[in-house]
Amino acid sequence: MTDEELMRAALAEAAAAGARGEVPVGAVVAIGGQLVAAAGNEREATSDPTAHAEILALRRAAAALGSWRLAGATLFATLEPCPMCAGALVAARVERVVFGAFDPKAGACGSLYNLCVDPRLNHELTVVSGLAGAEAAELLSTWFARRREPSP
Amino acid sequence: MTDEELMRAALAEAAAAGARGEVPVGAVVAIGGQLVAAAGNEREATSDPTAHAEILALRRAAAALGSWRLAGATLFATLEPCPMCAGALVAARVERVVFGAFDPKAGACGSLYNLCVDPRLNHELTVVSGLAGAEAAELLSTWFARRREPSP
Repeated sequence: MTDEELMRAALAEAAAAGARGEVPVGAVVAIGGQLVAAAGNEREATSDPTAHAEILALRRAAAALGSWRLAGATLFATLEPCPMCAGALVAARVERVVFGAFDPKAGACGSLYNLCVDPRLNHELTVVSGLAGAEAAELLSTWFARRREPSP
Repeated sequence: MTDEELMRAALAEAAAAGARGEVPVGAVVAIGGQLVAAAGNEREATSDPTAHAEILALRRAAAALGSWRLAGATLFATLEPCPMCAGALVAARVERVVFGAFDPKAGACGSLYNLCVDPRLNHELTVVSGLAGAEAAELLSTWFARRREPSP
């Protein structure tokens, strides 16, 4: 699968999360263009503060591969990862992160922090930003606008 | 339980993790001095890159409370949390983190980053450092020294 196809899979996960009442963020993990794991945000459904799409996708990929080291893996996320998720990318030794929309309020892959590119940490990864970013941002802004509408 | 007793529980989790072949780090979550959840590092046993003691303790506390918002909670960790774990403390709206040893190579609560005290993020928490730090550091240095010994 191409990067664009993999990001489309992440967008589908984001849309499904939004339909379930979760903030619509999705992520997939791929190795050599092969999709290994996918997840949407599940924080509300599971009451788990760490159940961001990126964390779930990384955990599922590690379970599928039987290793916490995700060497050669790329994580595709619809939204710029937060500090927790960017830190998890480093902890999992992910090779590359590709994200859609920037998150100026919490982004840790360029906006507020750049945790994935810090030579003091024991791993660094390539960061690609803005792939299908407009679609990812649109999903989020539509979801938040609906949430603010008064109930009928 | 006092802060010292709760840190002692975290140290016991760290020692148990070390005995299982994991890097010896432990964490507990308490609310109002009551222990809610405890965990040691399980990264090797579970092949989960996110299975640091702090993440597991936060997830178990949220499961016990039925909420991802850990309002009023304190996390006690034997080692300064890394970026992933510090970000999780923010994501879980933890009120206070108390840690033992500083981690100059990956610490994100004062050493390399100070993710818990950043007014740009949507939550800030109190950071207390150095409680039983010598014991926590000793557990780690002994464990790594044993690991470097040649096999018989």
